[in-house]
Amino acid sequence: MDMIVVLKSSATDVDEQRVVERIRELGLVPHSSRGEFRTIIGAIGDKTPQACQQLEQLAGVDEVMAITQPYKLASREFHEADTILDVCGIRIGGPHVNIIAGPCAIESREVLFDVASAVKDAGASILRGGAYKPRSSPYSFSGLGEEGLKLLKEAGTAFSMPTITEVVDPRDVETVYEYADMFQIGARNMQNFNLLLEVGKTDKPVFIKRGLAASVTELLMSAEYVLSQGNHRVILCERGIRTFAEETRFTLDVAAIPVIQERSHLPVFVDPSHAAGKRDLVPALALAGIAAGASGAIVEVHSCPERALCDGPQAVLPHNFVTLMGQIKQVAEIVGHRVTLWGREEEPKPRPAVGGWAG
Amino acid sequence: MDMIVVLKSSATDVDEQRVVERIRELGLVPHSSRGEFRTIIGAIGDKTPQACQQLEQLAGVDEVMAITQPYKLASREFHEADTILDVCGIRIGGPHVNIIAGPCAIESREVLFDVASAVKDAGASILRGGAYKPRSSPYSFSGLGEEGLKLLKEAGTAFSMPTITEVVDPRDVETVYEYADMFQIGARNMQNFNLLLEVGKTDKPVFIKRGLAASVTELLMSAEYVLSQGNHRVILCERGIRTFAEETRFTLDVAAIPVIQERSHLPVFVDPSHAAGKRDLVPALALAGIAAGASGAIVEVHSCPERALCDGPQAVLPHNFVTLMGQIKQVAEIVGHRVTLWGREEEPKPRPAVGGWAG
Amino acid sequence: MDMIVVLKSSATDVDEQRVVERIRELGLVPHSSRGEFRTIIGAIGDKTPQACQQLEQLAGVDEVMAITQPYKLASREFHEADTILDVCGIRIGGPHVNIIAGPCAIESREVLFDVASAVKDAGASILRGGAYKPRSSPYSFSGLGEEGLKLLKEAGTAFSMPTITEVVDPRDVETVYEYADMFQIGARNMQNFNLLLEVGKTDKPVFIKRGLAASVTELLMSAEYVLSQGNHRVILCERGIRTFAEETRFTLDVAAIPVIQERSHLPVFVDPSHAAGKRDLVPALALAGIAAGASGAIVEVHSCPERALCDGPQAVLPHNFVTLMGQIKQVAEIVGHRVTLWGREEEPKPRPAVGGWAG
Amino acid sequence: MDMIVVLKSSATDVDEQRVVERIRELGLVPHSSRGEFRTIIGAIGDKTPQACQQLEQLAGVDEVMAITQPYKLASREFHEADTILDVCGIRIGGPHVNIIAGPCAIESREVLFDVASAVKDAGASILRGGAYKPRSSPYSFSGLGEEGLKLLKEAGTAFSMPTITEVVDPRDVETVYEYADMFQIGARNMQNFNLLLEVGKTDKPVFIKRGLAASVTELLMSAEYVLSQGNHRVILCERGIRTFAEETRFTLDVAAIPVIQERSHLPVFVDPSHAAGKRDLVPALALAGIAAGASGAIVEVHSCPERALCDGPQAVLPHNFVTLMGQIKQVAEIVGHRVTLWGREEEPKPRPAVGGWAG
Repeated sequence: MDMIVVLKSSATDVDEQRVVERIRELGLVPHSSRGEFRTIIGAIGDKTPQACQQLEQLAGVDEVMAITQPYKLASREFHEADTILDVCGIRIGGPHVNIIAGPCAIESREVLFDVASAVKDAGASILRGGAYKPRSSPYSFSGLGEEGLKLLKEAGTAFSMPTITEVVDPRDVETVYEYADMFQIGARNMQNFNLLLEVGKTDKPVFIKRGLAASVTELLMSAEYVLSQGNHRVILCERGIRTFAEETRFTLDVAAIPVIQERSHLPVFVDPSHAAGKRDLVPALALAGIAAGASGAIVEVHSCPERALCDGPQAVLPHNFVTLMGQIKQVAEIVGHRVTLWGREEEPKPRPAVGGWAG
Repeated sequence: MDMIVVLKSSATDVDEQRVVERIRELGLVPHSSRGEFRTIIGAIGDKTPQACQQLEQLAGVDEVMAITQPYKLASREFHEADTILDVCGIRIGGPHVNIIAGPCAIESREVLFDVASAVKDAGASILRGGAYKPRSSPYSFSGLGEEGLKLLKEAGTAFSMPTITEVVDPRDVETVYEYADMFQIGARNMQNFNLLLEVGKTDKPVFIKRGLAASVTELLMSAEYVLSQGNHRVILCERGIRTFAEETRFTLDVAAIPVIQERSHLPVFVDPSHAAGKRDLVPALALAGIAAGASGAIVEVHSCPERALCDGPQAVLPHNFVTLMGQIKQVAEIVGHRVTLWGREEEPKPRPAVGGWAG
Repeated sequence: MDMIVVLKSSATDVDEQRVVERIRELGLVPHSSRGEFRTIIGAIGDKTPQACQQLEQLAGVDEVMAITQPYKLASREFHEADTILDVCGIRIGGPHVNIIAGPCAIESREVLFDVASAVKDAGASILRGGAYKPRSSPYSFSGLGEEGLKLLKEAGTAFSMPTITEVVDPRDVETVYEYADMFQIGARNMQNFNLLLEVGKTDKPVFIKRGLAASVTELLMSAEYVLSQGNHRVILCERGIRTFAEETRFTLDVAAIPVIQERSHLPVFVDPSHAAGKRDLVPALALAGIAAGASGAIVEVHSCPERALCDGPQAVLPHNFVTLMGQIKQVAEIVGHRVTLWGREEEPKPRPAVGGWAG
Repeated sequence: MDMIVVLKSSATDVDEQRVVERIRELGLVPHSSRGEFRTIIGAIGDKTPQACQQLEQLAGVDEVMAITQPYKLASREFHEADTILDVCGIRIGGPHVNIIAGPCAIESREVLFDVASAVKDAGASILRGGAYKPRSSPYSFSGLGEEGLKLLKEAGTAFSMPTITEVVDPRDVETVYEYADMFQIGARNMQNFNLLLEVGKTDKPVFIKRGLAASVTELLMSAEYVLSQGNHRVILCERGIRTFAEETRFTLDVAAIPVIQERSHLPVFVDPSHAAGKRDLVPALALAGIAAGASGAIVEVHSCPERALCDGPQAVLPHNFVTLMGQIKQVAEIVGHRVTLWGREEEPKPRPAVGGWAG
């Protein structure tokens, strides 16, 4: 049963009749149940969100309550087991904990390679770096573009790490596809639906960050956009929501991690850097996320953050990242997970040509 | 003076010296002032947002406070008088109050023309209608696309009303430009910076809705993106923010209207329909916005909302819109404004070919 | 029917049987309705909130949805017509618009009388002034206490205005009752339930401000506390909620006014001063509230705000209050209301001895 | 230096002179510093919050920025080392992690003793139980009052556990003092200042929960109320704030834990139960809080939650609490903390007569 239509106590038989007819007209099957004071009518069938809105407006209707969630492919009901992706030989999701690390923006070959080397050594399994940076000011550094992508690919190859980078424009999807191993959809683009459709048509993993004001349901609907195009390799990320609490840049909604896991089979990561906005708080938030069951974290690291062109204050220094990785490893184990330690216990499989990974 | 750097009470002379040097290196002019317990250093010059972040990380620095706003072209300081735009002969901004009305989505020629005729008669001056609808579900009706734009242009011509429609993808800017008189940037795209840059390169007015979680400063920064490209015809719109208050779809932040007017010369509208999410509340919110000084309102009207394919519950019925227009007219006058009554007091100038309006 | 219990699609007959039994045990009447995929069970009877929580935990239960609101005496269903109170001869509620004005805190006889005289002349019908000020800092001025109440009573008598003052402690209810005509319950005490019970036992009107983080339902539940004790003279007030929008002190949720009016018969006021936090914004918010249908406003006025001991920045100057009153009067009329103009059109009835008003 | 007054670029010499004079009049010492475009004036001295508000209103003043925090006794600057309390022989704060557990409300001797026995065995060191329950509905169970306190004391003695219970009314402080070892101030009373003053006059520890809409600064100001009365035994607790995220009852602001620790020397706990509102999420949130560095957690446990009279859905079952305690113990160690295991490694000192503990 998809919806429950609750009639007002003042609804007439004619009102009820009209609601029943309209339910049929919408292609749903009505089931009336007359209580002592009110009648409720179930409406069963494939839910279209507008059906809900349309029924709500009929005379005599008090409320229409949705029973099933508006997403399907992203739901646990559709796919009960945790989805585990294979990205260049690394397994992501379920008990596998992966740490994505790197600078906020790709600024220069030197900084990128310094940071990549440091995070690889510390145990990060995936390299991040932004080439297209959405910035609230038109006067801020907005990334090196394709030049940055080239550097990222070069670093990924040099350190045998798969790479992830943000794409902000549907017109750039093809270019980003060429250089990076995973697409990142930033919080501000979580509901850029055309962009979601575009990455949904590719075969590379899509890492979607929760919007600043997005509910968990809306995040899963955005995943549904990608899944509906045939790309089943989606990873979700809690990165903080906007609330009145101004002591941190955003409020990390750590509970979203188990909530998403309950509703969806997709892997969930935590982004402690953007939530905190301040490096001193990053370790506490990273560990909180891992303790809450996240399948990984994405952490900004910079070798000289006071000269970073973007978000320096939240970048962790390499030596602090080493300590953090050690703690993450232990906390993950307490909750039954295991950190993928690239280049430590096991060498990754040789990196195949771009685009060639099986999902 | 752009920033104030407050040193910790424990900062040493060496710390202070380094901060001063770094300020100079960033191209700013330092001004030290030693207080009894702390030293503060002003940093004067063209502000780059990252300078603020970079100084904040130096040893001995307690806090860096920005003094000037990060936007320029959008600010009252840059342009003291209210900006008044001319759109197809209609004046928008300052004391001129314009009501934009029409259906949420363009669904069919019949509905669009019905609604256009009704809102024109009631006194609306601009016709709205969506051809590209951003929908949280990939399974919802997402608009008729170019077919819808054609219908909108046809209706605008038939009823002598300039038209506005949402654009969601940089790739559609050219097409929308061809058919509509104004671009609407929806709340979910307020920080789709490439889209802002694209419409900034045209000469048609851009109506930017405040994001669900955007501060007023961020809204003005988004306007700055458009203005920085040479398009000075920007209109802002308060449409409700996301808060814990779930009784309405969003929380109309009515105070944002006078706050924006204090900081910026750009016209500010109110969108009561999306904030309310429910037609019964639309008149109260529309009047509240006009009473608070808005230069207009954008209202969804539908002749048969219980069959609307999008947002029916918040669409006002034509006969209620007539009553609302009457009240808006009176409230506007009390606060020193005047509603543009299309086709009533004065016939509009003949509608020139699309693209030919002077700003 | 009070609740709908939705069973999981996986629920067994045994699960269903247990839910039905538990509903009966809770003193409610069950009504099962088996749909194609799920069974839903109505639970009819006097709702106890814990029944809802208890059913929710049974095996096989997916969701329990409340159908009726948890408040009764405060609801429109209980009392369809607008409640109109008589306070010392002034009618409050419905179409009667009353403006409550005065200083934030009672600081001295001189300031209080100056302000009282000015707001009376401008058309305010009720005098406000705080004697017990809840302050976030223990080092701030917290009011003159009983000394302040005496001054307030003296000013009320001198200017023939009923008075309102905040009470923050159940132990002060008796004292405040002696001096003032109306109790104000501040936002921070909206859920100080013992205080609500205490004022509920008196026969003087209780003006309850919405808490910073309270839903409309919670506000009505707080009213229910007072009503349940036999005091039916309750007035509600929207004064801004806490959100991420930091440009104003709080975010005035103007939509709460019509929402409350739809659900409740109690009068609703607006407090533009605390929402704005800044005097320049007060007129816009006051007019917005009146335009949205409020039955009044409570406005802070000070003759020398830059020396005020509390909340000076949000106090309106007397001459600006005169202008505002003129606009309020006109806006009220447009929405079918009428401002009570004390000492203008009609002299109030002689002020009877304290405590002697009929409700 | 307490404040920085930033003048407008348009401020005249006369404006500046008046600001300087007013600063002196307020008992502060002015320090002018003329920049290229603006003048800034430091105001040094004991800060009174109204000074800030008063200066803000002077002609020519653009902004007044506070440099020091408004709390003193609660700040790290006042007391650099972590405060460690001794409650009946248990050390609270710093690296000592204590788990407070028990039922939401004290319902009966049987349930209380069952739960107390279970949580004691699992390793909880302090027993909780509510005798005065603030409930949003006047029709809900509101606790057994003094009868409940007697049961709590009896259980505490029987199981050798110090006890904590909520006090909601200044008139009950004496009674609660008689029976319990610690006062709990609930979220809804965080700004019930008279209640804070009352418990501040006692010598028993005060456990203050953060309000639903309170900033960290406001929480510390509430602690300051207690500290200012001479009671230095204060513990703080993050329990979730109200945001738009409706998937959980409240949003646990896990970052508040390290933020408070940075600013204050007082112990910080986490309350996963009220934040989650649902027992399945409690372990994840409890572990997240401990991983983020909390000095303890307060967890609701019930032996038969589907019959609980209050908040059953969020109560953890005893056997799940055992598992959780095991994980908490390990996570605490990873972040350098250590769980106080009552009656395990070390027997507590014999419980002295109520009221006789040294702080």
